[in-house]
Formats: sequence, C-alpha cells, structure tokens
Amino acid sequence: MSQIAGQGRNNRPAGSQGPMNIAEVTKTKDTRKSSPVDRLLALVAADMQATDLIIHDRLGSTVSLIPDLAKHLVESGGKRLRPLLTLAAARAGGYQGDKHICLAAAVEFIHTATLLHDDVVDASTLRRGKIAANVVWGNKPSVLVGDFLFSRAFQLMVEGGDLSVLDILAGASAIIAEGEVMQLKSANNLATTEDDYLQVVTAKTAALFAAAAQSGAMIARTGAAVIEGFRVYGKKLGIAFQLVDDALDYSGRQAQMGKSVGDDFREAKVTLPVVLAYARADAEARRFWQRTIADGAQNDSDLKQAIALVEETGAIEETRARAARYADEACEALSVLPDSEIRRELIALAEFCVDRGY
Amino acid sequence: MSQIAGQGRNNRPAGSQGPMNIAEVTKTKDTRKSSPVDRLLALVAADMQATDLIIHDRLGSTVSLIPDLAKHLVESGGKRLRPLLTLAAARAGGYQGDKHICLAAAVEFIHTATLLHDDVVDASTLRRGKIAANVVWGNKPSVLVGDFLFSRAFQLMVEGGDLSVLDILAGASAIIAEGEVMQLKSANNLATTEDDYLQVVTAKTAALFAAAAQSGAMIARTGAAVIEGFRVYGKKLGIAFQLVDDALDYSGRQAQMGKSVGDDFREAKVTLPVVLAYARADAEARRFWQRTIADGAQNDSDLKQAIALVEETGAIEETRARAARYADEACEALSVLPDSEIRRELIALAEFCVDRGY
Repeated sequence: MSQIAGQGRNNRPAGSQGPMNIAEVTKTKDTRKSSPVDRLLALVAADMQATDLIIHDRLGSTVSLIPDLAKHLVESGGKRLRPLLTLAAARAGGYQGDKHICLAAAVEFIHTATLLHDDVVDASTLRRGKIAANVVWGNKPSVLVGDFLFSRAFQLMVEGGDLSVLDILAGASAIIAEGEVMQLKSANNLATTEDDYLQVVTAKTAALFAAAAQSGAMIARTGAAVIEGFRVYGKKLGIAFQLVDDALDYSGRQAQMGKSVGDDFREAKVTLPVVLAYARADAEARRFWQRTIADGAQNDSDLKQAIALVEETGAIEETRARAARYADEACEALSVLPDSEIRRELIALAEFCVDRGY
Repeated sequence: MSQIAGQGRNNRPAGSQGPMNIAEVTKTKDTRKSSPVDRLLALVAADMQATDLIIHDRLGSTVSLIPDLAKHLVESGGKRLRPLLTLAAARAGGYQGDKHICLAAAVEFIHTATLLHDDVVDASTLRRGKIAANVVWGNKPSVLVGDFLFSRAFQLMVEGGDLSVLDILAGASAIIAEGEVMQLKSANNLATTEDDYLQVVTAKTAALFAAAAQSGAMIARTGAAVIEGFRVYGKKLGIAFQLVDDALDYSGRQAQMGKSVGDDFREAKVTLPVVLAYARADAEARRFWQRTIADGAQNDSDLKQAIALVEETGAIEETRARAARYADEACEALSVLPDSEIRRELIALAEFCVDRGY
C-alpha cells in the first residue's frame, strides 16, 4: 500500500481491507507515537487506500504525457491532508456508503491542479523536494495537465452524485483562483496589510480545506450544525496551516537543516512575516525591504538578512501565535461533534499543524 | 443588446423579450440575407440575450483584474457558436424551461477558459484581432483567470441541475486538455499522419461542439436518438470548422485581405494542409518543410513560400473537401429531427462553416 499511496512513512495497519471499527482502531496502539496525520490516516486507512486507487486510475489517459506528468506530482509524497479531511468528516458522521472516496479523490485532483498552475505562475523549480513539473516538462504541459485534472475532479464529483457538494467544491475552485490573482497583485507591494494577506490565505488555501471537510460531512448527511462545524474547522485549519508555511519559509532553523527556505522572499511575496517585520522596521531595515521586495532587487546575501530581520522583530513568533489562535478556533468549531477518536485526532491535527517544524 | 452581446453585426429583431414563436420568426424576412449564424441567433435571440446577461454577471469578482481580463476576451466579438448550439438544440427539442441558459453560458466559459490557456501555451499575440490577454496582462493572470472561468462554468452547470449533462461537459473538458497535449506533441513532427491530426481536432475542438449540442438536447429530454443526433452533428460540425480554420491559416486570399494568417506555420503545428502538402512535396519542398517545421528555423519570406506550396499541391482544396464531407455527415445526423426552421438553419450552418472565407 505504501507504494501506491506514496505515503511510506504512514504507520497504517497492514492488510486492513474494509473500514475499521473502533475495536480495530484501539488495537493500533503504536500509532500513538506518530503524528496526528498518521493516526488519522490509520483511522481511515482503507478509505485512503481506495482513494489512492481512484486517483491513480483517473490519472490515466491514452496521451501518456498526462499520467507521466501528473504522477510526478501525485506520487511525490504529499500529505494528502485535504482528502484526509473529507474522509475523516464522512467517517465522523458515520457515513456507510462509498461516495466519499470519489469526493476525496476530486479534492486531491483540485489541489494537484492548483499546484501545477501555481508552479507555472511562480516559475518554481522545486515542489515537495523534487524538480517541479514545469521544469521537467515545461510550462505548456503543466497548464494543460492542470486543466485535465480539474476536469477529472468534476467528473469524480459527478460520480459522487450530490449537486450541493459539487456546488461547494466548484465554488471553492473559483475562490482559489481569486486568491491566487490577489496574491499576484500583492507581490512587491509593501502596502499589503495583514487583512489583505488574510484575504489571500483564506481564498487560496483555506477555501479548499473548508470545502474538503464540509463536503465529507455533507455526504454523510450529518445535519446543518455539524456540516457548518466541519466547514469552519477546515477553514481555520487551512489559515493556520498557511500561516505556519509562510513562517517556515523564513526559518533559519529550517535552512540549517538543509530544507528549502526563501521561496516567498525570492518571489517578493508579501506574507505575514514580511508585513509584521516591515511594520516594525527601523529606517535601515525599511530600505532593505523596499529594495528587496518592492523593487525586487536582491543579491545572494539578502535572504540571510531577511531571515534575521523577521526573527529579530518577533515576526515569526507572532505569525505562529496567530496560527495558534486559528487552530484554537478550528478545534472550537468541532465542539458540535460528540467525543470520538476521530474528533480527538482532528483536534490534535490542528495543534500539530501549528507546532510542526516542516 | 449588441453592446452587451458584443455581437453588433447580428440582425436580431429589436425589442424581443421572450422566446419567439414561428409566426414571429417568419416576420423577420430580411434576416434571409444574413449568414446562418445570424439567422440562428435571431431564432434564439431572447435566449442568447439571457445567456449574455448570465455570462457578464458571472464574470464578476471582487478581484477586479478577473472581470477586466475575462471581458477583454468575452467582449471581443466571438461568434458564440458553441452556446448557440446548446440553445438551438434545446429549442429544437421544444424545451420550455430556463436551464439551457446556464448551460449555454457554461459552454462559453469553458471555451473562453481554453482560449486563455491556449494563448499562454501558444504564446499568441493576437486573439480575434485584439491583442491577446497574455500580452496585455501576462501569462500568470491568464492561467488563473482561465481557472476561475472553468470553476464558474461548473457552478453554472450545477445551477443547470442535471448531473448527466455535467458529466458530458466535464468529460468534454478533459478531452479538450488531452487534445491540446496531443497537439503539443505533434508540433515540429512531420511524421504526423492525417489520423493523428484528426484525433487532435476531434479532441481539442469537436468535443466541445458535440457536448454543447448534446447537452441542449439532453436538457430538453428529446429522447436518445435526437440526443445522439445532436452529439454527432456537433462533433462533425466541429471537425469541419477546425479543418476550415486550419485551411484559412494558409490562405493567400486571407493574407491579401489583411487578415491574420500563418499562426500555425510560425508555431510549427502540423495541421492537415501541411500533412497533405508534405506528402506531395518534391525533394526541394521536403527540405523546406523539414527546415521550417521540423527544425523550426524560419525566416520572414518562408510563410509566403509555405502558402504557395500548400496551394500548389492542392492541400487547401483537399482540406476544404474533407471539411465538406464532415459537414455533410453533420447534416445527415440531423435526419432524426422533423423539419423545422431551426433544423434548416443548422444544416445551412454546416454548409456555411465550410464555405466561409473568415
């Protein structure tokens, strides 16, 4: 399974074929040592396996470049966080059917399509530690394979058979595109406010997290309050997740560990660490940000200086504190659910997203 | 209305508010002088007006760059051929509801999204005689606004309320992307056969024509035979349309009239005129095609020479003859329909698509 899923580090019980019941879950004691992502994956292991099978099946095309390019990204060890939310929400609602599998696959396809197009838009060279598809195959196939995956996502939603779920996911896709355009406009713009930034993050990242969780609850017909609870959970989790991502991109510790940092800086994106650091900057630091972000005139030593400035001004700490607040709000939104293993792990997931160092 | 529609040259009866009946249609005698496109537009004038209103409404976004960019293309005087097929098929089926309006708008949005992405992929500088959006705003917004329009298209289909229609249009979108990727692969490749070419055309162009016509018939619940008739009509019309487009791109007469020619040649696309001309080329002409298409090494005088070669070898004439055969098959597919004004104009449209000089 680990090969199929590209999730080798997940500690799922071997040989599980159908949905697990609570008795089976409590048997997997050693999963407690792993992250909440791994434990949630274990709770919906069979569903995620079925989702992965659908994902690989629907990447297929007689035009071989399409699966070649799509698999490069799909098999690159993404965390499958978004489909995980769909599966967990459906499971939490006691859903017994199989439509959540198509929806989870559709959610991952939308995410993959946006990554392909993002990498073209950002002219990225790396994605998940691998050379980005746009570098290997060029921008043209990346744009077109993104379109193919979008279309496949909607075909999968049709199989899901629920028009109101389709509406939620189509709406989220439109909002993601709006968020990406907003982000383009805020690049190089030091007048970007924290509110502007939050609007971008809510649209480009949180909208799909929200729709992923909400649609799982909808397919389980859990009632309006629980559906709304999952929507808010997903949205707040998504904001927290992106805030931490943006903090990590200026992390000196990450850089020391050999991990990629500075992508946002090089692209002159005005993320929250920069908004906060710029607001607290002295005259010399302001000139630094104006040159490197507003004018985009950077040299090799600037990233180190940028990291020092965001750390000195407490901008990283404060970005993480903001993320923690959103994570708290995410957990709060799940108070509509009765206590369960899934609910506990979803709460742990929100905390984990804030504390993670990668 | 002409301003809203961007269809100023259409001769539609002024002041028509609701669907016209046959008595009203026969009153509009002077429309006989115009093209079948204009006459079909007159037959569904109120529906097309409603479609245009929906199109303009759904382009809206708080992110102003999105409607600015989208309107640049939507208002550039496209023929609205694809939504016209949806509206005509629904009308031919006696449909009395209003769901066909959403579908027709969705079809135009899918088409517009693919044009935006095509122009990025082809690095085009002109579209419909205007500077292409990717030149005005850059590739990044063009990719993202295309994604926005795709998403809006699916939201409109949800409003259409028919999952089987959604499936047809989502499937067509996936096939369009496959066709575009196939076309990328055949560029610079003189080993491309007529069959390869037809596969590309069937996917990148005919699939949406087919889905547009079919979905109009489906929403009208006209029965399997008529739905299939419209699907085949749309498909064959789409192939004929693209064949003529590809012939016109090598038309010396077009060039004399100041119209844009040579786009395919400059992009080293291997369209049917080139496939046929290369098959009939002498040794010197083969060297010309190898240098300009396979090696992509072109100079300013090469287009004139290419046009001369495709004309001399009869490749243009034969491409048009192929188109005429597909148009005949399109008309034949409508034999399942009883005689009506719409059916007669759809048949005239197929003939017109072949004979058109633009």
